[in-house]
Amino acid sequence: MRIALLGGTGDIGEGLALRFARDTDHEILIGSRDPEKARDAVASYEDELAERGADASVKGFANEMAADRADVVVLSVPPYYAGDTVEAVADSLDEDTILVTPAVGMQGDEDGLHYHPPGAGSVTELVAQRAPDAVPVVGAFHNLAADALSDLDNDLDLDTLVVADDGDAKKRVLDLANEIEGLRALDVGPLANAAEVESVTPLVINIAKYNEDMHDVGVKWV
Amino acid sequence: MRIALLGGTGDIGEGLALRFARDTDHEILIGSRDPEKARDAVASYEDELAERGADASVKGFANEMAADRADVVVLSVPPYYAGDTVEAVADSLDEDTILVTPAVGMQGDEDGLHYHPPGAGSVTELVAQRAPDAVPVVGAFHNLAADALSDLDNDLDLDTLVVADDGDAKKRVLDLANEIEGLRALDVGPLANAAEVESVTPLVINIAKYNEDMHDVGVKWV
Repeated sequence: MRIALLGGTGDIGEGLALRFARDTDHEILIGSRDPEKARDAVASYEDELAERGADASVKGFANEMAADRADVVVLSVPPYYAGDTVEAVADSLDEDTILVTPAVGMQGDEDGLHYHPPGAGSVTELVAQRAPDAVPVVGAFHNLAADALSDLDNDLDLDTLVVADDGDAKKRVLDLANEIEGLRALDVGPLANAAEVESVTPLVINIAKYNEDMHDVGVKWV
Repeated sequence: MRIALLGGTGDIGEGLALRFARDTDHEILIGSRDPEKARDAVASYEDELAERGADASVKGFANEMAADRADVVVLSVPPYYAGDTVEAVADSLDEDTILVTPAVGMQGDEDGLHYHPPGAGSVTELVAQRAPDAVPVVGAFHNLAADALSDLDNDLDLDTLVVADDGDAKKRVLDLANEIEGLRALDVGPLANAAEVESVTPLVINIAKYNEDMHDVGVKWV
């Protein structure tokens, strides 16, 4: 399978790219608005993986081209770019391409971070609204700390929550997420349940802020 | 210390009453709008505790009287009664009484449960608005499954998140929650951070709905 990480040079993109590359046999395509930047990121990811003896396939492209070649497209871009990025690559998406969105809208103040969803109810649902109708949209990987993911020396023991209206697409993303070592994927139903999933992201950041030794804290549903 | 559980005949009240009674040396006061109902609940809790050889002090009162005698008052009532219950017992509260609120506003549909906060931003903040100014309000125990709490054969291994603007009151509730065996209390800052904490309650119920063998699921921040 080919997995494109749009915005794959950013923090959550880096973590997912490294984990997918190390732990699975899938081809990883790093997308960026600037293909040169994508290729620079690939070089650095390859160094990181080679140091660990991982035999991985990672390539860099412009976002559109990465999306065009992929079976699964992960929108690892900041939330305010999520809708525009979907539209920029819309011609490269079709019913056989699963679009995965991990982005979360947040606003900060002196107290901490607060969940700040768009009018669609959640960034996940916003992405579904902006995507071509036939394209199955899946929300996943929302609550993972980027630093915890991208540090390959860090053994994960975390859960990720998955929402989608399309049962087949959801099943494929659940399976894919479970391929990452130490990650357990749980079904939380349809896209309408995304807001409560996204809302955990500012919460983990607030827990990290108010508790020593909980930097990069994650979540287990037990 | 005396801990009053207003609405202590209900499901979350029962669980907290049994755990506090078994695991701590505090006096437990069960409050209800109907004192007869409170005393019936006490009889049943005492049987439950005696079966386990727990030497506990549990007494039943009308809500106002329970609040009047307590150092910590837990508003274990449904969210739509939280504000009115605070006002009903307001004369029994003072600056030396910590008011603890575990209630969460939710709405359900065919997809699952959704977070539905009041205009105040969260039930926790609503309680703070309705409480007399001098009374320190603490949000805690929001995300615990009532059945998991009230089954004393069930060993807890869970976290609870605590928010408050009053640092001393927050510290006392953190300590109190940590006295429950298997429960770890974490600070998540001021009351303004309550919404993201409350929002986890519909999420755990949705996780239970969509995953087999996850009835009464709880959360660990790891």
